[in-house]
Amino acid sequence: MQRKSNMFPARISRVRSKFPDYKIDSLLFFNMNNIRYLSGYTGSDGALIIDGKNAVLLVDGRYITQAKQEAADMEIIQYQDKIKGVLQSIKKQNLRYIGFESDFVTVQFYNHLLQELHGEILRPLGNELRLIRAYKDKTEVLLMKKAAEISSAAIFSVISEIKTGCSEKDLALQLEMIARQEGADQIAFETIVAFGENSALPHATPTGRKIKKGDFIVIDFGVKYKGYCSDETCTFIFQEITEEQKRAYQLVKKAYDQGIGAVAAGVAAADVDHLTRNTFGDKYEKYFSHGTGHGVGLEVHEAPRLNTVSPDILEEQMVVTIEPGLYFPGRWGIRIEDTVLVKKNSCEKLTKMDKGLIIIE
Amino acid sequence: MQRKSNMFPARISRVRSKFPDYKIDSLLFFNMNNIRYLSGYTGSDGALIIDGKNAVLLVDGRYITQAKQEAADMEIIQYQDKIKGVLQSIKKQNLRYIGFESDFVTVQFYNHLLQELHGEILRPLGNELRLIRAYKDKTEVLLMKKAAEISSAAIFSVISEIKTGCSEKDLALQLEMIARQEGADQIAFETIVAFGENSALPHATPTGRKIKKGDFIVIDFGVKYKGYCSDETCTFIFQEITEEQKRAYQLVKKAYDQGIGAVAAGVAAADVDHLTRNTFGDKYEKYFSHGTGHGVGLEVHEAPRLNTVSPDILEEQMVVTIEPGLYFPGRWGIRIEDTVLVKKNSCEKLTKMDKGLIIIE
Repeated sequence: MQRKSNMFPARISRVRSKFPDYKIDSLLFFNMNNIRYLSGYTGSDGALIIDGKNAVLLVDGRYITQAKQEAADMEIIQYQDKIKGVLQSIKKQNLRYIGFESDFVTVQFYNHLLQELHGEILRPLGNELRLIRAYKDKTEVLLMKKAAEISSAAIFSVISEIKTGCSEKDLALQLEMIARQEGADQIAFETIVAFGENSALPHATPTGRKIKKGDFIVIDFGVKYKGYCSDETCTFIFQEITEEQKRAYQLVKKAYDQGIGAVAAGVAAADVDHLTRNTFGDKYEKYFSHGTGHGVGLEVHEAPRLNTVSPDILEEQMVVTIEPGLYFPGRWGIRIEDTVLVKKNSCEKLTKMDKGLIIIE
Repeated sequence: MQRKSNMFPARISRVRSKFPDYKIDSLLFFNMNNIRYLSGYTGSDGALIIDGKNAVLLVDGRYITQAKQEAADMEIIQYQDKIKGVLQSIKKQNLRYIGFESDFVTVQFYNHLLQELHGEILRPLGNELRLIRAYKDKTEVLLMKKAAEISSAAIFSVISEIKTGCSEKDLALQLEMIARQEGADQIAFETIVAFGENSALPHATPTGRKIKKGDFIVIDFGVKYKGYCSDETCTFIFQEITEEQKRAYQLVKKAYDQGIGAVAAGVAAADVDHLTRNTFGDKYEKYFSHGTGHGVGLEVHEAPRLNTVSPDILEEQMVVTIEPGLYFPGRWGIRIEDTVLVKKNSCEKLTKMDKGLIIIE
């Protein structure tokens, strides 16, 4: 417990150390994942104000007991109206140059806040805060490993449930039940189970479609464990495979291997995307219709981004996905994805399913 | 199918009819629930531009096949970068006075967009769009009834699972499994199952806490059915009840009855809150630490709001919750909630559990 309670002050100090660079004396947080990261408070509404000396958590009446339990070391203030509560703290703490999350705060909230301020300066911080949660400390990596372990085990278990007559919805429900029984708090995103022609939709929603011989089965699944997400995609084939399907699978697997092989500290995220994408060549590149990957943490999609225009450099302790795919509309699709921890010269897979071709009999 | 495909043009026409009031010639939508409401497209990313003549849906490569299926009558454009895609359409369609959802668009996105525009005017629409999805048409009410039917049935079924040794997590998982088997797409929000002292947290998260004699059991549960949410809270007591608990339950029930009785077209939402809240009297009002209710639809919390400062007037075809509660920190809490459809002189309960006191043996 002692180690845990030091975690939040350390994170807050890291944020505070950037104040001179950002030319601010204080920072307002409204993104609940950032607030959780910095305070331990897991409620779904609130605000956090960090200045040079204090960190103040503001919540409404629904969350006051929870906030006192979860952020025991922090000053906690109860508000009835969030903007009024924040304004009162700004006055009381005598804040002047106030940073805020410009990629989270809405135009309406900003205008409202601005209108009530007199002399204080609001500084939008967008790119500056992009990577605030990107480097995972040891506690976080342990939680992410546990999340990945649970979701990989659920995918492995569900293979034996794939039989003639089973629908996408059946399988999605099975996966989620197993994961919950194994200790997942909840799913990290809407489970994708897609058979045959539906596998050509990268973000398919499970339907009543029943499995048929020769179908690809795309399972994109992740869970949350104590707030932290996992994300993994397996593509299986049901009963029989054509030569064309086998070649396509091997091509996606090759792209995935290239991507995994490219991940290391100091490598540009755009280069990992490029190396992965290039595997497909001119003929197939257009069928890979999304980025190569993304950061994972308290949110299933967070910084860094791995795509053609990403400005990010991968660094040790970042956790990202590698997930190339090929999608042939109306026919079928394939995606292979792992969540990996960036190391000095390589990466460590957190998700555990083997990505060799599996034919389900 | 014909009736369904006319639904979206009708909704778009209603939005377009307000353009003169808003002094705009076009409106940008980024909120995916608004986009779904206006187009039928259910993907998790995209943009919608409505001008005087056209409605154009913009999506990235992951969603192009899905968008063509779901919004078949609409012009669909594929982008690689969302801001660039939107800017190209603004130029191509020659838009000049462009409204946008100021309660959704972030300061960062807005600044980025602004910087690329030359002469076009962006008009923030916040309150103007607040009630855009508040009036539910017949199709929507049917889907909401189905969602409520599923979640009420799941709560009813789970009562027989409440036995000595059972934990909050066990019960939450059971509820969700039953609801999914009965046809729910997913849960509408994180399920609350709270026993004893945990029931004093209005937004408790299920834990391993096992049930004990004399515990209140708060179950706040809702599901999504074809996108539409239900929301219902039942408070049961396990095996035995004290006089104090009984009186508190009866008081919350009385407040709930007042609230339900007050709902009708033309009534101010703040008045419904006031009537409900007043039931508690000076002694207990401070233990009712949240608003009386909220609108429900594609989002579980949407306009109108039912609280002390709400500006909203209830109107026919709105769907709202009534959910008074009392919370005694460290001891126990009670909440009773239904989702109701506002009628001319009354309301119709969509959620179905009886709200009389149930002692589980």
